[in-house]
Amino acid sequence: MLRTHTCGDLRLTHAGTTATLCGWVDSYRDHGGGLFIDLRDRYGITQVVFNPPDTPPAIIEASKDLRAEYVIQVTGNVEPRPTGMANLKHKSGEIELRVTELKLLNKSKVPPVSPSESITEVPNEDLRLKHRYLDLRRQSMQRALILRDQITKGMRDYFADLGFIDVETPILGRSTPEGARDYLVPSRVHHGKFYALPQSPQLYKQILMIAGYDRYVQVARCFRDEDLRADRQPEFTQIDLEMAFIDDDDIMTIIDGLMQKLAKEVLGLDVQLPLPRMTYDEAMRRFGHDAPDLRYGCEITDLTDLAAKCEFGVFTSVVEAGGHVRAICVPGGSNHYSRRGIDALTEFARGLGAKGLAYFRVDDAGKLDSNIGKYFTDELKAEMAERLGAKANDLVLFSADQWLPTCKLLHNLRKKIGEEMKLYDPKAMNFSWVVQFPMFERTEDSDNPQAVGKWSAMHHPFTAPLDEHVVNLDDDPGKCRAKAYDLIINGYEAGGGTIRIHDPEVQSKVFGLLGIDKETAADRFGFLLEALAYGAPPHGGIALGLDRVVMLFGGYDNIRDVIAFPKTQKATDLMTEAPGLVDAKQLKELAIKTDL
Amino acid sequence: MLRTHTCGDLRLTHAGTTATLCGWVDSYRDHGGGLFIDLRDRYGITQVVFNPPDTPPAIIEASKDLRAEYVIQVTGNVEPRPTGMANLKHKSGEIELRVTELKLLNKSKVPPVSPSESITEVPNEDLRLKHRYLDLRRQSMQRALILRDQITKGMRDYFADLGFIDVETPILGRSTPEGARDYLVPSRVHHGKFYALPQSPQLYKQILMIAGYDRYVQVARCFRDEDLRADRQPEFTQIDLEMAFIDDDDIMTIIDGLMQKLAKEVLGLDVQLPLPRMTYDEAMRRFGHDAPDLRYGCEITDLTDLAAKCEFGVFTSVVEAGGHVRAICVPGGSNHYSRRGIDALTEFARGLGAKGLAYFRVDDAGKLDSNIGKYFTDELKAEMAERLGAKANDLVLFSADQWLPTCKLLHNLRKKIGEEMKLYDPKAMNFSWVVQFPMFERTEDSDNPQAVGKWSAMHHPFTAPLDEHVVNLDDDPGKCRAKAYDLIINGYEAGGGTIRIHDPEVQSKVFGLLGIDKETAADRFGFLLEALAYGAPPHGGIALGLDRVVMLFGGYDNIRDVIAFPKTQKATDLMTEAPGLVDAKQLKELAIKTDL
Repeated sequence: MLRTHTCGDLRLTHAGTTATLCGWVDSYRDHGGGLFIDLRDRYGITQVVFNPPDTPPAIIEASKDLRAEYVIQVTGNVEPRPTGMANLKHKSGEIELRVTELKLLNKSKVPPVSPSESITEVPNEDLRLKHRYLDLRRQSMQRALILRDQITKGMRDYFADLGFIDVETPILGRSTPEGARDYLVPSRVHHGKFYALPQSPQLYKQILMIAGYDRYVQVARCFRDEDLRADRQPEFTQIDLEMAFIDDDDIMTIIDGLMQKLAKEVLGLDVQLPLPRMTYDEAMRRFGHDAPDLRYGCEITDLTDLAAKCEFGVFTSVVEAGGHVRAICVPGGSNHYSRRGIDALTEFARGLGAKGLAYFRVDDAGKLDSNIGKYFTDELKAEMAERLGAKANDLVLFSADQWLPTCKLLHNLRKKIGEEMKLYDPKAMNFSWVVQFPMFERTEDSDNPQAVGKWSAMHHPFTAPLDEHVVNLDDDPGKCRAKAYDLIINGYEAGGGTIRIHDPEVQSKVFGLLGIDKETAADRFGFLLEALAYGAPPHGGIALGLDRVVMLFGGYDNIRDVIAFPKTQKATDLMTEAPGLVDAKQLKELAIKTDL
Repeated sequence: MLRTHTCGDLRLTHAGTTATLCGWVDSYRDHGGGLFIDLRDRYGITQVVFNPPDTPPAIIEASKDLRAEYVIQVTGNVEPRPTGMANLKHKSGEIELRVTELKLLNKSKVPPVSPSESITEVPNEDLRLKHRYLDLRRQSMQRALILRDQITKGMRDYFADLGFIDVETPILGRSTPEGARDYLVPSRVHHGKFYALPQSPQLYKQILMIAGYDRYVQVARCFRDEDLRADRQPEFTQIDLEMAFIDDDDIMTIIDGLMQKLAKEVLGLDVQLPLPRMTYDEAMRRFGHDAPDLRYGCEITDLTDLAAKCEFGVFTSVVEAGGHVRAICVPGGSNHYSRRGIDALTEFARGLGAKGLAYFRVDDAGKLDSNIGKYFTDELKAEMAERLGAKANDLVLFSADQWLPTCKLLHNLRKKIGEEMKLYDPKAMNFSWVVQFPMFERTEDSDNPQAVGKWSAMHHPFTAPLDEHVVNLDDDPGKCRAKAYDLIINGYEAGGGTIRIHDPEVQSKVFGLLGIDKETAADRFGFLLEALAYGAPPHGGIALGLDRVVMLFGGYDNIRDVIAFPKTQKATDLMTEAPGLVDAKQLKELAIKTDL
C-alpha cells in the first residue's frame, strides 16, 4: 500500500508517530513560511502542514506548486493541533501531519466542478454530468453511493439470513410482459434475430419457483426504452424476490421486517410493525390516490349527499349525473392562502382538467364562508363543517366531478398544499401498504381502437384474484380485487408485487377476460405456460425500486443523484464527453463490425 | 405460510407432533392398503405415508391419483420410521409423516426430464435446456446454483469487510476497449444512436478510482457477441474490483485471502498463503503455457544444446534455424502408451501443427530407446536422460520448433496426458499466480493487413509496465513486462488484472507504440483520458470469472451447468420453447415498435 493510514484514520492517540497519507489537495493556504493543506480521501480530511522545522526547505518549496485536486503522498509526524485550532467537523480534526516527505503522484487541471466541501455553491447539473469523475468526488455524491451500497448490502444480508437464494437471470432474453417498450439487441450469431433486455425478471423468477428454488432474490437490472424523467432512467435496479408456498400476507411480513431493519441501520429510526395496510378502495376514498402520503392528514371527505341539498348548480348537476362532491379541509389553510393564493390553486386545478375550484374559508367562529356560500343554508353549512371537522381558519377545497377526476384533483391539491404549508416533517419516514388492487381496469386510451373499453390487467396477466373473488371472474370482473400489494413510502410507490395464478383454469379465465386467445398466449408466454403445467407451486413476490428507496432514505430529489453514471437529458450534447452513449464515430465503426 | 416445516426439517425430536409439509411427489410406491410418497422440496425429502389408521379412507383413495411432480400439501403425525427402515441418506430419513389431511395444490404432466434422484440416468442436454424448469429441479443443478449463491455471498462479504463499495456501473453505455465484438442496442429516444453492452466495467471502474471511491467491487454482468462454447456464454458474470493507492502485490494479497476463505467455506480445504507466484516467462519455460496446471509435474526440459550434438536432421536443422528442442518426461508413460497410444499422440500433435512426434521410451535400465536412437551417442542419451530426470518406464516426448510452437505442443501434450493418465487428484484444488506478462506482442493475424507485425497490447492499453521497465518503452518494448497478474486454478485462468497507467507521459508512449494516434485515442477513450488529467491516483484491479470459479469449485465441466438460464448451442431449435431468444413472431412485432 502507498499509505499507512487513510485521511480519516488519525486521532490524538496517534500523536508522536509517523504516518504516510495519500489523497487529493482539497484546499491550501499559504502562510508565508509554509503551507497548510487539507488532504482529502473517501474517509475524511487531514490537515497536512509544510512548515519548518519538520519540513525540509526543498519540500516547502516544492509544496508551493501544489494546486487543488493534485494527488500527493506525504509522510510526516502526527502532532496535536495547536490549542484552539482543532476542527471537530473532521474525524481527524484534532491532529495534523507535519510533513517530512512529499511525493507528487499526479497533477490536475483546474477542476470545472469543485469537489471540495469548502466550495458551497453546487455546480449546474450539465457540468456535473460532463465531469462526472469530479462530481462523484463531492461529499453529497459519495454519501449517496455509500448509502446505496449500505442499503443493498443490508437487503442482501436480510434475505440471505432468511434462506433466499440469489439467482442471476438473463439480461439477454425474451420479451417480458410488462408492456413498456423493449430494448432490442441484434445477435450476430443468429443473424436477423434479436434479444430483448428484460423489463423485469418476472417470468424467470416464476420459472425458478416452478423449479423448486422456494425463495429467490436478486438485485436485478431492468430496462425500458422510455423517455428520461427526473425519477426515471432507461436502466434501473430492482430488489426482486419470489417465494413459493406462501400467500400475500407472508410477502408483506417479510418486507415489513426489511423496512424495519433498514430504517434502523440506515437512519436510526424505530419502525413499528406490522406496517399499516389499507385497501386500494380505501386509499382512493380517503386520499384519492393509490400511493397516499400518510405523513399528514387532510383526508378527503365525501359531501355528495349534502351537496345534493344545496342550490349551487355546479354541485347539483354533478350529483344528478351520478358524480361526487368531495372536499379536503386544510388546517390553517385560510390563513396561509390569500386571495392570490387561492387563484394560484385554481389555476393549478384548471391545469389538471377541472373547470374551477370551489372553496370555503372557515371564519374565526368556525363558520363556512365563500362567494358560493349563498347557495347553502346555514344548517347545511354547519352540517358540512361538522362532517369535515372544520376549525377556525381552515380552508375547504372542493372537487365535483365523476369519481376518478375528483380523486385526481383532490390528491394533487393535497400533495401541493402539503409541500407548500410544510404539513409534515421532511425527515419523517412513513411506511405503509396499499393492498387489494382491482384485477382489471377498462382501457381508456390505446393506439389500438379495438382495445378501448375492454378489460386490461392492472398489474400483469399472471396476478391472482382474492380467493373469495374468483367467482367474480365469471359474473363481475370489475369487482375482482387482486392479491396485489404496493409498498408506500412517504407517498411514493417504493415497490409492488402480487401472488401469481398457479391454477391453469383461473389463468385461462383471466386470459379470456383480457382478450388473449390461446394462440396469442402461447406465442407470448408459451414457455411460462408450459412450465405451469408441470407442477407449479402457489407462489408470489415483489419488486422494490432500489433507486427510489435510496432516494427516499437519503433525502435526494433527483434519481441522477443516487446513480454513479446516469443517462442524461441532454445526451446528444454530452455524448462524446460523458460516459453513456456511443458516439457517432464509434457507431460507424461498430455498425460495420456487426453488419448493421 | 402453507407449511409448518420444509421437507428437510423434521427429525426424531419432532416425533409425536403434527406438521404440514408442501412439496413435489418425487416417487410413490403403492403397497396395496396405502401409499408411500417421497415428498421433495429444495431442503430435502420426507417420506409421507397414506395408511390406516392415521389416514382416512377418502384420503387414501385420493392419494392414488397422485403422480410424479404433483404438488401437494399434507398434514399428519410425525412418527419414527419402523425399526430398520430409516434412510440416513436424507436429513429427515429417520421419521415419516402419517398423513391425516391432503390438498392437491397442482397437477403435473408426465415430466420429460425427471427431477428425481431415484432416476440415475441423466437426460440429454437438449431436453434439459428445453424443459429447464424440470432440469433445475435436479439435485445437481440445485447444488450448482446454491454453490453459486454461496460463493457470490462469500465474496461480497469478504470485500464489504475490507471497506469495498459495491457500485453499479451501466449496462447501456459506450463501447469498452476489450476488443471482442460488442452487442449494440439501438435507442429509440436518440434515433439512429446505439448503446453498447459492456465487455467489462473497465473504464467505469477506473473513473470511480479517479473519483476517489478508493475500493470498488461489483458482481458485474458482461457481454461479448461471440460464438457459444462449452466454457463461454455471450453474457457472463465477473467479480470486478479496483483499488487506489496500491500496487500489484496488494491486489494479489487481497485475492489470496479471498481464495483461502472460499476454499475453507465451500470445500473445507485449507489453503496456505501467499499463493505461489510465477512469472510469465517462467511459466512458458516450465509449462509452455501462461495458465499452467500445477496439480502435477511433467515439466518441460530444454534440450536444445544437447540436440545440437546429435545427428538427427530434424533436430539439428531446427537448432540451426534458431529454434528449440524441448521435451517432457512422462513418469510411467512408456507403460501407459503402447505403440498405438504413441500413434494417437502423434496424430494429436499433427492436429496441433507439428510435423510428427519424436519420442524416447525409457527402458528398465533407465536408458533411452527409440527408432531415432541411432542418431544419438550413448553419452548424449545418458546426458539427456539425466537432465530429464528420466526413470525406468518413463516416456520422453519432444517438440523441435520455434519457441511458441514448442510451448503450444508440449503444453497440450502435457494436458492430454495428465488427464489420460490421471496424474492428479481430480478433487485437488491448486491456486497460483502468473505475473509480469509482456506489455506487447507482435500481431500475427488481423483483418487489417497493416496491423500485422505491429505491437499490440497483451492486456489493454491502460496496463502499466514494471517500474524498472518504463525505460524499455523507448529502447526495447518487447522486453517490457507489465504489472499484470492472472489467478490460475487447476490450469484455468480464473481471473486477471493489471495496475493501470496513471502517468499521462507513460500513457502517451504506450499509445504511440500501439499506433494509437491522439485523435484516435481521444475518440475511443476520450472520457477516460480527460478524467486522467484531473488528479488520477495510482490504481489497479482484477476481474474474476464467476462462472469459471463456480465450475472449478463445484467440479462441473460445462458452463451451462452453473447458470440458471444459459443460451443454447441449438438456439434456433429451441428458440420458441426455451427462455433465451426472441422468437420470430415476437421479433416482427417488436421490430415494428422500434422502427428497426
